[in-house]
Amino acid sequence: MMPVIDFRLRPPLKGFLDMIMYAGADRRDRLTRQHGMEPAPSAQAKSMPMLLEEMDAAGITTGVVMGRQSGLYGSVSNQDVADIVAAYPGRFIGVGSLDPANRRKAIRQIDEAISLGLKGINLEPGAYATPLCADDRRLYPIYAYCEDKNIPVTIMAGGSAGPDLSYTNPVHIDRMAGDFPDLRIAITHGAWPWVTEILHVAYRRTNVYISPDQYLCNLPGMNDYLIAANGYLADRFLYASSYPFIGVREYMEWFRKQPIKPELLDGIMYRNAVRFLGLPE
Amino acid sequence: MMPVIDFRLRPPLKGFLDMIMYAGADRRDRLTRQHGMEPAPSAQAKSMPMLLEEMDAAGITTGVVMGRQSGLYGSVSNQDVADIVAAYPGRFIGVGSLDPANRRKAIRQIDEAISLGLKGINLEPGAYATPLCADDRRLYPIYAYCEDKNIPVTIMAGGSAGPDLSYTNPVHIDRMAGDFPDLRIAITHGAWPWVTEILHVAYRRTNVYISPDQYLCNLPGMNDYLIAANGYLADRFLYASSYPFIGVREYMEWFRKQPIKPELLDGIMYRNAVRFLGLPE
Amino acid sequence: MMPVIDFRLRPPLKGFLDMIMYAGADRRDRLTRQHGMEPAPSAQAKSMPMLLEEMDAAGITTGVVMGRQSGLYGSVSNQDVADIVAAYPGRFIGVGSLDPANRRKAIRQIDEAISLGLKGINLEPGAYATPLCADDRRLYPIYAYCEDKNIPVTIMAGGSAGPDLSYTNPVHIDRMAGDFPDLRIAITHGAWPWVTEILHVAYRRTNVYISPDQYLCNLPGMNDYLIAANGYLADRFLYASSYPFIGVREYMEWFRKQPIKPELLDGIMYRNAVRFLGLPE
Repeated sequence: MMPVIDFRLRPPLKGFLDMIMYAGADRRDRLTRQHGMEPAPSAQAKSMPMLLEEMDAAGITTGVVMGRQSGLYGSVSNQDVADIVAAYPGRFIGVGSLDPANRRKAIRQIDEAISLGLKGINLEPGAYATPLCADDRRLYPIYAYCEDKNIPVTIMAGGSAGPDLSYTNPVHIDRMAGDFPDLRIAITHGAWPWVTEILHVAYRRTNVYISPDQYLCNLPGMNDYLIAANGYLADRFLYASSYPFIGVREYMEWFRKQPIKPELLDGIMYRNAVRFLGLPE
Repeated sequence: MMPVIDFRLRPPLKGFLDMIMYAGADRRDRLTRQHGMEPAPSAQAKSMPMLLEEMDAAGITTGVVMGRQSGLYGSVSNQDVADIVAAYPGRFIGVGSLDPANRRKAIRQIDEAISLGLKGINLEPGAYATPLCADDRRLYPIYAYCEDKNIPVTIMAGGSAGPDLSYTNPVHIDRMAGDFPDLRIAITHGAWPWVTEILHVAYRRTNVYISPDQYLCNLPGMNDYLIAANGYLADRFLYASSYPFIGVREYMEWFRKQPIKPELLDGIMYRNAVRFLGLPE
Repeated sequence: MMPVIDFRLRPPLKGFLDMIMYAGADRRDRLTRQHGMEPAPSAQAKSMPMLLEEMDAAGITTGVVMGRQSGLYGSVSNQDVADIVAAYPGRFIGVGSLDPANRRKAIRQIDEAISLGLKGINLEPGAYATPLCADDRRLYPIYAYCEDKNIPVTIMAGGSAGPDLSYTNPVHIDRMAGDFPDLRIAITHGAWPWVTEILHVAYRRTNVYISPDQYLCNLPGMNDYLIAANGYLADRFLYASSYPFIGVREYMEWFRKQPIKPELLDGIMYRNAVRFLGLPE
């Protein structure tokens, strides 16, 4: 059995419990059903033992837990992410976060995250208290620092990550990815609905990885994501459930039915994430 | 037999006869053929008896007739729409229109439309004498009034509804739909060609209905519209021929061949329109 | 056997040899493989005899050689294009180019190109020393001149033709194509990734031809290009390999497998180019 990394998995712990993904169960379940899925039992029960069982049943070795300091969606601190990783040895990989409002503090938060053993930095430009686009000048010192320190960044773009969909227009990512060519960038939510546009950015900018996660699942544009996954993006496509929005088991069952070349699954579901995060194989 | 509402159907009467859809038969027939369709006999003959026969043959119970006060495309007044509805009892539902240039007059036109028995208000932002985007500030008093009075609005966005395609970019609809969350909004022409983008807006904003009408028919993007129709948009997708651009019978024959789940057809072809327009079931 | 025109084919001659397409073989071959293709032997050997053999094997009667005066990608002068055409009688058709920085000089370059027997003018707005959008005011005297003289223009938009993907947004083409309705315009690189958007422009503006060339090949959006090619765009879709990025033989083998109606192939692979370029049949 090959190991599987789920690149976006938020367990029912710490600050995640205060977010709409757990605190607003009705809204979450409505979104889950918009993907044609039923809510995961562990999500409804907010139960870690049940989640671990579901991960085992789905064959998910490890989940990537991304912190967040978001005006719109709430916060999970770097310490909290580190605590989650420590509490379940081998089951989670942590990615830190920061508040971009003060660039010196943001740099300190990056250092803090790395010193806590976290493997990258998560940015959510459109969801900050002051919504930003990914190419906002105020983020450039952060990108420069991460590029220089070889720290990968995840950027939430797509879905409802901003006051309106202009914030996630891939033109912003095209610019910043070109300006920091040695920075590894993973686009979580896959910049949906800008599907062909973000896939162009990844065609052109080979430092860009794509994680469509829940927005791959039974939505318009999914066929174009899959064309890329089966082609030039095979080594930069990342498997992710977006749990608890879609259950880890439900997502896996769905994903296994998609027309992806079997020889590419090991990369998409494991090795690409390892390479992106700079983990030992 | 279930009843069917065709959400966009312009009979050969009143001001419609002066519009390019009837007065410019060559251009209309060229567009019809761009969809792989032959012109409807009733459209070429400008014949109401023939149209009613074609509606019967197609099983179209009722057509939604939308008025228009457009710089670019001509006008059909609220009184004219009401007269059409009255002249063919049970066959048409009317939707009024207004001129947004003067907000006080526009509000009076809304009141007039409702007092005439019309069921909603049609806006064509990109086609006014001064072209507007759907989130133009000058439309906001109109949206506010309709939201407060529970009057649904149709917004023509897509196709050639503006001097260029920036006018129909769904970002404008994302903003206004978020600003008026209790306003029911139907996007006629389905914001084509911004297919994944408008489907994102409808994913996020549950007050948005989509009527791709003629732009569903044999065009790029059609498969993504259908993914949404078969999924999260099943209860907000609206069937519409855009007659006379496509014949009611020709459109029905084509539509019946599309891969839409049979159990969803009653919603898409009837109940969604009833709910949107606030009609008794 | 019907004749075939490959609308974008750059032989290993003159200034093309200094461009990344030949001078940067590693980068080119990486891009070739992103399309799931292996590099053409003639491209790797930079061999004209091998290219001519590959053209014969693929059934390519004639290739369209487009000059370029590009800040980003290098230059091939009008004289060089004319020399290539003259050196291989019957195998190439030339399209000239210009430097838009000085409008009077640009007009002289158009006259020069025509006097050398070239059949159109190639513009690459996003790739000039000062990147432009296709509706930049500084290009309008050039469009006006070409429209008045009945000279077709090719516009490179799509792929990486600009500092970021905003430059190739079809809104710019929608505007200029509407402003010069009698100008024949071919969009090379098919404005990829803005697939549905450019196909809308071509639906609306019947003076616009589309050549997706390499960006049709195994990329997201390809199914939507094919819907248009099989429908309303059948008489304005242009076959092109983008050689040397994809080999003429490799592209032809791939193209023959695509689901295009056989009765449309003669137009797409030959007659549309003849009509666009104003050649005798």
